[in-house]
Formats: sequence, structure tokens, C-alpha cells
Amino acid sequence: MRTQVAIIGAGPAGLLLSHLLHLKGIESVVLETRSREEIESTIRAGVLEQGTMDILTETGVGERMKREGALHHGIELAFGGRRHRIDLTELTGQAITVYAQHEVIKDLVAARLAAQGQLLFSVSGTSIEGVETDKPRVRFMHEGEQHTLEADFIAGCDGFHGVSRPAIPDSKRQDYQRIYPFGWFGVLVEAPPSSDELIYAQHERGFVLVSTRSPTVQRLYFQCDPKDSVDNWSDDRIWNEFHTRLENGDGWRLKEGKIFQKGIIGMRSFVSTPMQHGRLFLAGDAAHIVPPTGAKGLNLAVGDVKRLAQGIDDFYRSASEAGLASYTEQALKRIWRAEYFSWWMTSMLHTFEDASPFQRQIQRAELENVVNSRALSTALAENYVGAF
Amino acid sequence: MRTQVAIIGAGPAGLLLSHLLHLKGIESVVLETRSREEIESTIRAGVLEQGTMDILTETGVGERMKREGALHHGIELAFGGRRHRIDLTELTGQAITVYAQHEVIKDLVAARLAAQGQLLFSVSGTSIEGVETDKPRVRFMHEGEQHTLEADFIAGCDGFHGVSRPAIPDSKRQDYQRIYPFGWFGVLVEAPPSSDELIYAQHERGFVLVSTRSPTVQRLYFQCDPKDSVDNWSDDRIWNEFHTRLENGDGWRLKEGKIFQKGIIGMRSFVSTPMQHGRLFLAGDAAHIVPPTGAKGLNLAVGDVKRLAQGIDDFYRSASEAGLASYTEQALKRIWRAEYFSWWMTSMLHTFEDASPFQRQIQRAELENVVNSRALSTALAENYVGAF
Repeated sequence: MRTQVAIIGAGPAGLLLSHLLHLKGIESVVLETRSREEIESTIRAGVLEQGTMDILTETGVGERMKREGALHHGIELAFGGRRHRIDLTELTGQAITVYAQHEVIKDLVAARLAAQGQLLFSVSGTSIEGVETDKPRVRFMHEGEQHTLEADFIAGCDGFHGVSRPAIPDSKRQDYQRIYPFGWFGVLVEAPPSSDELIYAQHERGFVLVSTRSPTVQRLYFQCDPKDSVDNWSDDRIWNEFHTRLENGDGWRLKEGKIFQKGIIGMRSFVSTPMQHGRLFLAGDAAHIVPPTGAKGLNLAVGDVKRLAQGIDDFYRSASEAGLASYTEQALKRIWRAEYFSWWMTSMLHTFEDASPFQRQIQRAELENVVNSRALSTALAENYVGAF
Repeated sequence: MRTQVAIIGAGPAGLLLSHLLHLKGIESVVLETRSREEIESTIRAGVLEQGTMDILTETGVGERMKREGALHHGIELAFGGRRHRIDLTELTGQAITVYAQHEVIKDLVAARLAAQGQLLFSVSGTSIEGVETDKPRVRFMHEGEQHTLEADFIAGCDGFHGVSRPAIPDSKRQDYQRIYPFGWFGVLVEAPPSSDELIYAQHERGFVLVSTRSPTVQRLYFQCDPKDSVDNWSDDRIWNEFHTRLENGDGWRLKEGKIFQKGIIGMRSFVSTPMQHGRLFLAGDAAHIVPPTGAKGLNLAVGDVKRLAQGIDDFYRSASEAGLASYTEQALKRIWRAEYFSWWMTSMLHTFEDASPFQRQIQRAELENVVNSRALSTALAENYVGAF
């Protein structure tokens, strides 16, 4: 097999890259270890920045997002028994759309298949070779047979645990990481929205995020011990925890419903650099992870592949390697800003067991400053909507 | 002896309080352990917010400040080999004045003495009694004799190490504290200014502050081990450290001159609450300390005594205790905001030995965000000038 760009991973990064390349007349093959059903049903992030909405719309895959996604003009910060609205649109002129990542994936898969794009699901044994030459190759098993895919470039879009990043030798790579001492306990609930907008709540017992997946499904999270087990949490205990952290006696109540999915996710900040080694380019979670507090993961992946598609197009169109050569440096500017914002939101909103009384007061004072200073509200809003 | 308000400590808080009370027709006596010469020559902070300038001017003690102080409309943040100006006046409409704290003290001492104010210097053995009654007393030695000063109120303006705060029982007090793992090595230098505006420089070897005391004297600081000794630092070694941390090859050079004073100060954040116990009220450093990075110490003391003088005036004028009863709560709003800002500036600009590579990148990303985002620049500027 041969193609121009071998793309490892059919998450948002790999699928969008394949789609963007197709629109520029560049051929790619996408290899994915999971099944189509699995990638189309795994619940992940759901906040799209304006720039993400724009590129999906401009490239013809934004129709359903526009129809079914919920445009949000603000978020709420809750602490100290009160809720404070950050008016994203008034402060930045932009908005966000709440539209689940797996819905974006469905739309991209549909578009690629409609265009006869080559997506291979349920591949295994993927390995990368020859990235320091101009004939890199990917070996993999598919439907019981061994294949070798030759390409001009390999795009590693296979997430944090994928094979792409380790294909860059340790000696050439620097990784930056912080693992947070807490996780998020996430539940999906059959209930209408409790709030029109996302609520980011800071409470001494820990953070809570109230969000909505659809008019009939709520997506709720509470800060937990990352080593805890969902088996320790009955529905009653879960609801008690949410009510305690969210309700202050002002009459607002979180709407309950049937909990039909529970899970615990860890929280990590991570950046690996460089994002290029020879003909291998990393994009999305393969190169960097943000804790979900800033809602930046999907948006960063989109930012990477926009830049990467442009660099690859320049290569074929004008034999210029400038865009590809500066890929790491250019991408990292946006990535570090998002890493900073995600770290900041995470630090400001979560409860740190080992925080001193002084540090807890500083955290509260920072939140007070955010909601009382238009300048600092604007700084938060700009970062949240990605207006930079 | 009897007075209306016994004021312990002749720093900016105690002297300004005495001055403000005098203007309202309220009598006070100020007790100070040090000599007049000592308080008028000890070099401390030197950045006055607009609100501090305003009250000094409005109450007739701002003449020399206006003449000799330097109005600054911006500061510079230096990192990564570049300098970035934060235009305070453009962003906030306000400015700061660089005018040394001991000059403010000289002006206040002169004003109090001109008005026949009672200032007792070189007192010793000060102790506080009866603050839970309406006849509190201060006992002290002065010129070899034991005195008892009876008053309606006692104002504890005697700094972090004074006797006033410990007069509030531990059981009624909560202290919040952070001691930073570094200090500032400060020098006074006979040389004209190296920069028109203050430079706050972040460097991997540590923070540097470049400031000016007068047209012929520079005030420079570099981050050091708080347990280091000035004896370990020859002038040559000091200049080497400054040049290494400040100069990037763009041609700008720090001006050298004769170093005529060296000293190391520790860095601490501290808040004690409540600031009132019966008839005893704390103001300034007696109740709270900020690291000097935010230039807030003197300004917080001024904020406290403005509020306290008003509360005492209300008490005598209209027998209302409302202002005094809410003193702690009202003062703490401003104090925690300044504590947050001082902690933030300190965290962002200093080198932390134990910071992970990730944390160092986040620190850089935060600085980049501050200088690249008008909103975040504005948030910094608002806090710096005290426009809140």
C-alpha cells in the first residue's frame, strides 16, 4: 500500500487532518485500533471554540453541529455560596458550542467515507519505520493480514498512549508533565439540563462541573480521588455529593435522573517536544494533554492539524518545507498558552488536600478577583473561547 | 497620661493615623521604640499608589512628595531576553509615585510635630492592658520613667514583630502565612538611574528589581538564599550577578557605582484576623505582610488607617460603632486582594529551586500571556496601581 500521508489514529486530529488534506487534493490513509462503533460512542470533551466551529463549518462538516450543538454565550463560576456569570460574548465577541466530541467524530467519519476516504478500523500491531528517511512506513495488521503502508509523511494522531510519540527517540525528546492529585468522577444522567450554561463550581469538598450533553442528558463531574473506584459510589452517594457541593439554599436544585454511565478520569498536564522527527509529525493528544478544566483538548488538536495540513500542502504545492520545519515552534505557542490556561483553571477551581490555610485564602481571593475585575474576567473569557 | 487614641508604632500606619485623627480633632499619642533618626533613615518600600498619593496631598503632607517623588506611568517586565512595558496609565488611567517610605515618614513626623502632636521616641517595655474594657491602657518606659497611657482606643501599628498582635489571644486569632524559600539581596548604589521605570526581571538564576531612589541613587535587588550573608558577596560578585540576570546583549547596561549599603530581607505573606479585639485595632504590618514584589506594603497600611480613622471619627461624632465593628471585614477585602496580587507577582517572577520543568514552562507561558494579552496586562496594572 502507498499513500501520501499515513495517519495513525481516527480521533478528531486524525480524521480532521485526513479531511483537510482531501480538500487540498492530498491522499491519506487513516489507521485506527478501535472499531468505528467504539470511536463513535466514546464520550469525551464537548466544548468547541469559535475557531473550531469555523473550520468545521468552512470545510462542510459543521451542518449537524450548527443544528444540534448548543451555542453558549457565557459560563458560570460558583464559589462561596454564590454563582457569577462570565459573559464570554460580551467580553470577547465570541461564543462556544457545546457539541460532543464523538458527534464531531461521526460527522468526520461520514464525510471521509462519503468521499471514498480510506479509514481502516480495528488495526493492530501498528509500528512506524524509516521516519528519518523520505520513505517512512507504517506496518500493521488488518483483518488478519500484515500490511505495510508507505507514505511521504506519517501523522501521529494516536493519542497519549499511542505508538507515534515513542517513535521519536527519548534522546531527541523533552517531556513536560504534571499529574494532579485528583481525578474527575463523571456521570451521564437522563435528565434535562439543570443550567442553561456550564457551571464550574469550587467547593471545599472539591470541584464540580455541570454540563449538558443534549436536551435529555446531563454530563456531570465531581473531583474525586483518582484511585477511587466507581464501585464505591452508589447513585445516592453520588447525588449527595453533587447536592452538597452545588447547592447553597438559594432554591436552585440540581436535577436528578437515571445515572446510566459512571467513570473516573485522571488529570494530567503534558507536553512533548519536538512534535516532529524527520517525516513523523505529532498532533493532538499524542503530543500534549491538558486537564479538561479549560475545555481545550479537542480545540488544540484542531489547531495542530490546521497548521500541519497547511505545511503539508505547502510541501506538495510549492516544494516549501518552511511550514513543516516551523510546525513544532508555531504549534507550541498556542499549546503552551492553553496549557497555562488549563493549569490555571485547574489550580483555581480544585481543592488541594495539601494546600495550607494561606493557599486556600489565596485561591478564594483569586476567584474574587476574577469575578470582580472586568480585566481578569476578560482574560479568562479570551482564553476560554480561544480568542488569541 | 490620658489621650483618646494610643498609637503604638511610628511607621507610616501610626503616623498617618495620628495625622488623620488630628485633622478630625481627635487627640492621640504615638509611642515608638526606635529613635526619630532611625525611623527617618531606615530604607523600605517606595511605590505609592494613586490613592496613597491622594490622601497625602489632600491632608497637606504631599508637597515634598509631589516635588521630589518620581511619577511613573509604566513598569517593565523582563524575561526571555526581552523587556516588555506595561503602560499603567494607558491601561488604568492612573500612575504611581516612587518616593521612599522614610521620606513619607519624615513628612509625617514634621507635620505632627508642627501641630504639637505627641510623639514619644525610644520608648521601651511597651505592654497593652484592658483592651476588653472601655479603658484600655498602654504601659511603657520613656526617658527612664514608667508611664501608663490611658485611652479610649489602642491602635497597634507596630509592625510584624510588635507587641500589639500578640495582645489578641491566640484562641481568638487565625494567622495565615507563607514563608518563601528565597530572599532579596538589596543594595544602594551611587549612580544615576539605569532605567526610567522599574524593571521586574525574571531569570533562571533568579528575580531582579531595578529601581531608583533619587537622581543619584539606585535601589537594586536580586533574589538570593534568605540564609545567605552579605559577607559572601563582594561588590564584584554582586555586579556580576546583576549583569548576568539583566543583560541580554541588546546594548542596555546596568549602571555601576559605589555600593554603600547591602542587606538581605526575607519574603513572607502573612495575614492575621481579626484585626480588632475589644478596643485594640491592628493596622499595617502588625496585621499583614506582603512580599515586596507587588509594592503593596505601605499602601495597605494607608488603606487600613484611612478606614480606622473614619471608624474612630464616627464613634466620637455620632456614637456609631458600625465603622469600627466592620473594620476587620472591610479591611480584609482589600488586604486579600493585595495578598493575592503580591503572591501572584512573586510566584510569576521568582525562580523556585524545586519547580519541575513543567512548572517552569507554565511560569514562562503565564508571563507571555501577561504581556501578549491586553486584558491580563490590564489586570496586572489595575492591581499594581491599586485601581480597585
